[in-house]
Amino acid sequence: MPAIRVFVTGGTFDKQYNELTGTLAFKDTHVPEMLRLGRCRVDVAVRTLMMIDSLEMSDSDRALIVEQCRQSPEPRIVITHGTDTMVETALALGGAFAPDGGRTIVLTGAMVPYAFGSSDGLFNLGSALSFVQVLPAGVYIAMNGRCFAWDRVRKNRESGVFEGD
Amino acid sequence: MPAIRVFVTGGTFDKQYNELTGTLAFKDTHVPEMLRLGRCRVDVAVRTLMMIDSLEMSDSDRALIVEQCRQSPEPRIVITHGTDTMVETALALGGAFAPDGGRTIVLTGAMVPYAFGSSDGLFNLGSALSFVQVLPAGVYIAMNGRCFAWDRVRKNRESGVFEGD
Amino acid sequence: MPAIRVFVTGGTFDKQYNELTGTLAFKDTHVPEMLRLGRCRVDVAVRTLMMIDSLEMSDSDRALIVEQCRQSPEPRIVITHGTDTMVETALALGGAFAPDGGRTIVLTGAMVPYAFGSSDGLFNLGSALSFVQVLPAGVYIAMNGRCFAWDRVRKNRESGVFEGD
Amino acid sequence: MPAIRVFVTGGTFDKQYNELTGTLAFKDTHVPEMLRLGRCRVDVAVRTLMMIDSLEMSDSDRALIVEQCRQSPEPRIVITHGTDTMVETALALGGAFAPDGGRTIVLTGAMVPYAFGSSDGLFNLGSALSFVQVLPAGVYIAMNGRCFAWDRVRKNRESGVFEGD
Repeated sequence: MPAIRVFVTGGTFDKQYNELTGTLAFKDTHVPEMLRLGRCRVDVAVRTLMMIDSLEMSDSDRALIVEQCRQSPEPRIVITHGTDTMVETALALGGAFAPDGGRTIVLTGAMVPYAFGSSDGLFNLGSALSFVQVLPAGVYIAMNGRCFAWDRVRKNRESGVFEGD
Repeated sequence: MPAIRVFVTGGTFDKQYNELTGTLAFKDTHVPEMLRLGRCRVDVAVRTLMMIDSLEMSDSDRALIVEQCRQSPEPRIVITHGTDTMVETALALGGAFAPDGGRTIVLTGAMVPYAFGSSDGLFNLGSALSFVQVLPAGVYIAMNGRCFAWDRVRKNRESGVFEGD
Repeated sequence: MPAIRVFVTGGTFDKQYNELTGTLAFKDTHVPEMLRLGRCRVDVAVRTLMMIDSLEMSDSDRALIVEQCRQSPEPRIVITHGTDTMVETALALGGAFAPDGGRTIVLTGAMVPYAFGSSDGLFNLGSALSFVQVLPAGVYIAMNGRCFAWDRVRKNRESGVFEGD
Repeated sequence: MPAIRVFVTGGTFDKQYNELTGTLAFKDTHVPEMLRLGRCRVDVAVRTLMMIDSLEMSDSDRALIVEQCRQSPEPRIVITHGTDTMVETALALGGAFAPDGGRTIVLTGAMVPYAFGSSDGLFNLGSALSFVQVLPAGVYIAMNGRCFAWDRVRKNRESGVFEGD
């Protein structure tokens, strides 16, 4: 059994530049390439659940994420997610998994797409994969070096920064 | 007081290409730039102790590192270090700080210089800064997503990979 | 007098990722940074005329570009431009400057923003700055290693590639 | 027949970081990858003649390069080359090919390896591929936006910059 399950849902992390349309769009996830770049030596299994902008994530999308976490044989789970509604998904997961739910779930994302040279994605992925290995059961958001409990975090819309209570 | 102290000692992390000589050399540390790229929101204070290849690190260099950790008012410390003798420095620190020494010290580095596009440095820095926030007092090596206790790790010279017991 | 005048008009070349809105937008031009990266030793003077998507370029914008080329004391001119209407601007310039107009004008751009790691921008800028130094008076489009006369080029909308007659 | 022949000889262009030894070394050439990144639409055929530091280039190596240029069915040739002895190879080629030799040969290289994020290689490759298409028969060095005739160029060892007479 892999040590860590990674569920990919899209978000800024995975946005690409479409040369023909001149717009940002989703194609395949960059997570496996990022794990190679980080020369990740932890046994990680990646599954793409959806590939969407988190502003377009519906209640049924969130129900699917909760269900996939419930069925995951790996108790340590990282979810890559758009930042705009990451807190909402954390709330859905936090409500579903009580602290004794036996799962450590860490949501992470990026302020800038990985495909851009200036992305924080690789830093955040290294961070999330580390927090998930040592934190007790629970649901967390790991962004830009910090880690927040699911019920004590919000995204500041003006600064774009995640803040605790 | 900053949440985390980062001591820079050089190593592959900080090697640069010298255009005039065509060789790799040290100039300034890239750690502050890496923290900006990772949009790090943890309060981190960086101090450069030395800027050397870890193969050239002497006993007195290691004594200096131990002493700086002892004097650090911040109990959570990340040390960037060349991979070749990272284990030796971890042993020096582990011997000096008993588990009840009140300090969580994480050594990290990179297989490829940060200045190269293909570096694992940003991933490792994100990882080390995360482990150091949640691990109990002790000395650790964090490389490529894994974290090892100071007395249970070695570098495999042939594969270049850090391995546990 | 500089050897080459560069007029910046925006286009894919200079699109950036806006972290707060999650969209592509213009801020400052990347051309000076690109000249530094290319360690450009040709004497180049850069002026930003506008910073727009070329789909939004109006007739009066094109008249401004023609006028700026006419007034430029430097007879060798590179114009960075969005690819969508680069051919239209080349036509406007070609009509204004007869072959004996004493000016060599090369339009160039990029299929992917320079701020993306996978951009062709640096290659194209090196190419355009070279063609402009050796081609006779006239108006040209230089993209992806090729160079086309202004009245013998079109952009293939389906493949995104510039083609000659 | 391809429009342009590219001969690869190594040099800074193609130096890579060897993770196991921590030194710079040659493996495969990056030229095909660079042509892809530049979305090069010129028909180019690449052949690796050698993969060496130009300080180690011998007279017989240079004789091989001259002979390969003589046998090339393509009259337009770009040679990637280390900067330290690029002038010497240009002299060997210039002596072998009189201006009416029917060949346009452009040597180029890089101050920083392509594998580094800060390389000038892509800029120089775009430049060399452009100069070679329009310059008359002869031997040239194209570096950092400038182009020099083979008998009117030297490398300034202190600044690392190519200069004309």
